[in-house]
Amino acid sequence: MYFHTDLKQLPGGVCAPAGFRASGLHCGIRPNTEKPDLAMILADVPCAAAGVYTQNLMKGAPVLVTKENLADGKAQAVICNSGNANTCNADGLEKARAMCDLTAKALGLSPQDVIVASTGVIGQPLPLEPIAQGIAPLVESLSREGGHAAATAIMTTDTVSKELALEFTVDGIPCRIAGMAKGSGMIHPNMATMLCFLTTDCAITPALLDKALHRCVADTFNMVSVDGDTSTNDTVVLMASGLAKNPEIQGEGAAYEAFCKALFDLLLYLSTQIAGDGEGATKLLVCSVTGAKDKEMAKACAKSVICSPLVKAAMFGADANCGRVLCALGYAGQPIDPHTVDVDFESEAGRIRVCAQGNGLAFDEEAAKAILLQKEILIHVDLGLGEACADAFGCDLTYDYVKINGDYRS
Amino acid sequence: MYFHTDLKQLPGGVCAPAGFRASGLHCGIRPNTEKPDLAMILADVPCAAAGVYTQNLMKGAPVLVTKENLADGKAQAVICNSGNANTCNADGLEKARAMCDLTAKALGLSPQDVIVASTGVIGQPLPLEPIAQGIAPLVESLSREGGHAAATAIMTTDTVSKELALEFTVDGIPCRIAGMAKGSGMIHPNMATMLCFLTTDCAITPALLDKALHRCVADTFNMVSVDGDTSTNDTVVLMASGLAKNPEIQGEGAAYEAFCKALFDLLLYLSTQIAGDGEGATKLLVCSVTGAKDKEMAKACAKSVICSPLVKAAMFGADANCGRVLCALGYAGQPIDPHTVDVDFESEAGRIRVCAQGNGLAFDEEAAKAILLQKEILIHVDLGLGEACADAFGCDLTYDYVKINGDYRS
Repeated sequence: MYFHTDLKQLPGGVCAPAGFRASGLHCGIRPNTEKPDLAMILADVPCAAAGVYTQNLMKGAPVLVTKENLADGKAQAVICNSGNANTCNADGLEKARAMCDLTAKALGLSPQDVIVASTGVIGQPLPLEPIAQGIAPLVESLSREGGHAAATAIMTTDTVSKELALEFTVDGIPCRIAGMAKGSGMIHPNMATMLCFLTTDCAITPALLDKALHRCVADTFNMVSVDGDTSTNDTVVLMASGLAKNPEIQGEGAAYEAFCKALFDLLLYLSTQIAGDGEGATKLLVCSVTGAKDKEMAKACAKSVICSPLVKAAMFGADANCGRVLCALGYAGQPIDPHTVDVDFESEAGRIRVCAQGNGLAFDEEAAKAILLQKEILIHVDLGLGEACADAFGCDLTYDYVKINGDYRS
Repeated sequence: MYFHTDLKQLPGGVCAPAGFRASGLHCGIRPNTEKPDLAMILADVPCAAAGVYTQNLMKGAPVLVTKENLADGKAQAVICNSGNANTCNADGLEKARAMCDLTAKALGLSPQDVIVASTGVIGQPLPLEPIAQGIAPLVESLSREGGHAAATAIMTTDTVSKELALEFTVDGIPCRIAGMAKGSGMIHPNMATMLCFLTTDCAITPALLDKALHRCVADTFNMVSVDGDTSTNDTVVLMASGLAKNPEIQGEGAAYEAFCKALFDLLLYLSTQIAGDGEGATKLLVCSVTGAKDKEMAKACAKSVICSPLVKAAMFGADANCGRVLCALGYAGQPIDPHTVDVDFESEAGRIRVCAQGNGLAFDEEAAKAILLQKEILIHVDLGLGEACADAFGCDLTYDYVKINGDYRS
C-alpha cells in the first residue's frame, strides 16, 4: 500500500472527533434512483473553520456562498447534496442560500454558520423541493454513528466512500482529525470535483486552521488528477470544535506542526483514495519525482506524467513504455535535461528501471508486466538535477472512463 | 464539411508542384507487418526550405539533425521512416545522421541537404539495417506518381493518409503547394506527432518561407489536440523548388499574402484531417471561439475545450452537456466572465444553443442528439468580451483510444 501513517486510525469517519454528528439519506434530487443524496454534519459548538476552493473561474453557486459564509472563520454545520452541482444556473445563488436558510432554521443557527456544497450535473436547475423535505428527517437522524451515511450521500460516480479518522497528540493531549471526501471524474486540482469535509476536536485559531489547510492541500489534493479537468465545485472545508481541550494552538511551533502532520496524513490518504477511484480506474498511479532543481519543477513534472492520457492508457494495458513518461516530462514546461533522467516502475511485485540517463533500456518484458498488473503503481522519475521532490496521484485510463463519461447525464 | 477552400484542388499529393518525386515502401522496421514504413521525397533542384519543430524538451534525434541541416535554409530530399521514432536511444543522433548519409550517397547530394524524420515507438533502438537495404529500391521507385505511396509509408496509427495539393496564383503565375501529413496519437502541438512534409514550386526566399510557415502553423497545427500529449518528434518542413518560375517572392506584399493564403488552407485541411483521425476517433470536433478580448484568450479557451477529456467523452456519447464546456473554459487560465458565455453545438444536422449568458438552457434532447451524432461537430463559444476569435481542432474520446494505447508497443 502506498499510503502509510504512524498515527492511530479510528472508526467513525467525520464523527470521530469530539463534538460532531452526521447523517445522510435519499431525498430525491434525481429520478429513478434510491441513492442517498443529502448529507449533514453538525457540531455541538461553534467551530473555527477554514476552506479551500476551486480556482476554476466558473465557480458553482455553493462555492460562492460558502466562501462568503466562511469569511469570518466560523461555522457550525454542513449541508451537502449530490446529484446536481447547482452550477451554471440563473437561480444558483438563490438556491444555495435557500439551502443554508433551511438548514439554519432547522438547527437554530445563523445561515452564515452553514457550509453548503453541491456536486453532480452542471447546467440543470437544482430541485429545491426534495431538499426542503429532506432536512427534517436529516436532522432527526443526526448521530455520532452517522459518518458513513454522510460519506455515502455525497458520492456521485465514486464506487467507494472515502473516510478516515486519525488520533494525534498536541501538547500531550489526544486530539482527533477526520474527513470524508468524494471525487471521481472531473478531477484535477486546482481543485477538482473534490468535496472534502474535515472535522477535528483540536483547539486552534481560525487563522492557523486556514494556514494549515492551505499548506497541506498543496502537496495532497492539489497533486491529484483523474482526467485533467478542474471542476467548478471543488471545496475542502475544515471545522475545529476545540472539544479536545488542548491549549488552543495560536502560533507556529511543535503543536502546530503536530496538527499539520495529522492533517497531511489524512489528506494524503483521501487523495490516494480519490485518485485510485477515478472514473473507470483499475489502478492507483503515483508519480514520484526526485532529483528536481526545485519543488516547482518536481511538482510540474509529476503532474505532467500523471495527467498524460498516453501514460494512463499504457498503465491500463500494463505496458512498460518509458517513452510516454519521457514525453510527458519534456512538455511539462520545466528545464529538464533529457540526458539525466531515470525512470523506474514499481509495485508490490517489484521494481524495474526502464530508462537510464534519458535512454530506453532493454528489460524483461514479463517481469515488467507482472509489476504493472498490480493495483498500485509507482512511477519513479529521477531528474538528476537537484534534491527537490514531489508526488502526484492519478489513475489509469480505461474503457470504463469513456463509458461513464459518454453518457453521464442520464 | 468544416473545411472549405476557394483554391483548386489537384491530384498527386506532394508531387503535384513542379520538380518533386516521391516513393514509399516496406523495408521492415518492425516484425510481423507488411505496412510500408520508408518514404522519400526528392526535388529536381536544391530548394529553399524551412522547418517548425516540437517544443517538447525531449526532442527526437531526427528533429535535432533536421534542425541542423535546415539551418542554412536549403534542402533537396526527405527520408522518413515509421515504426520507430529513434528517440530516447543512446545512439539516436548517430543513426539519424546515418540515414542522411545513406540517402545523400544514393542521390548524389550532401547529407546536409537531407531532411530526416522518424515516427513510432520511443525508447527502442532504431534498426538501421532494413533502412539501409531499403534505400536503393526507394530511389529506384521515385516517380511523380509516388505521392500516395510516400503518404502511406509515414503513417503509424493513422487510418487514412492525409494529402492535399492546391493551385494558387502569384503575380499571375500559377503555382502549386502540397503536403502529406501523419498524426494520430500523442497529438497536442506545440507540436504533436505530426510529421508534415510540404512541397511547392513557388519561388520564394528561405527567410520568407520560414516566416510564412511559422505564421500559418500557429492557427492550424498548433491548434490541434487529440490527447493533450505533445510529442517528441513533431516536424513540419516545407521545400520550395521555384520551378513555377514566378518572380521570386522576396518581401511582404500581395504575392507573399497569396502564398500564405494557399499555405494556410493546406495546413488547415491537414489539421482537420489529423484531428478527425485521432486515435479511436469517430468525430472531428472544432471549437470555434468568438467574442474574446484578444487572440491569446480565444486560443487558450478553444484549446481548453478541445483538450478536455470530459468534453471529448461527451461528444463520443452525443451528450449535449454544456457544463463540461463551461468547466473547460473556466480553467483555461483566462479572465473570462462566467455571465457572458454562450455555447452552441452545430453540425450538418443543425445548430442548437445549450447555454446563454453562463446559464444552462432547457433544450430538445432529441434534436441535440441528432446534431451530435454527425461526424463533424462545431462547438461554438461566444465569450461576449470582445472581437477576437480562434478555432481549435480535436476529436472525441472513445473506447478505441484506450484500446489502441493500452497496448501500443506490440
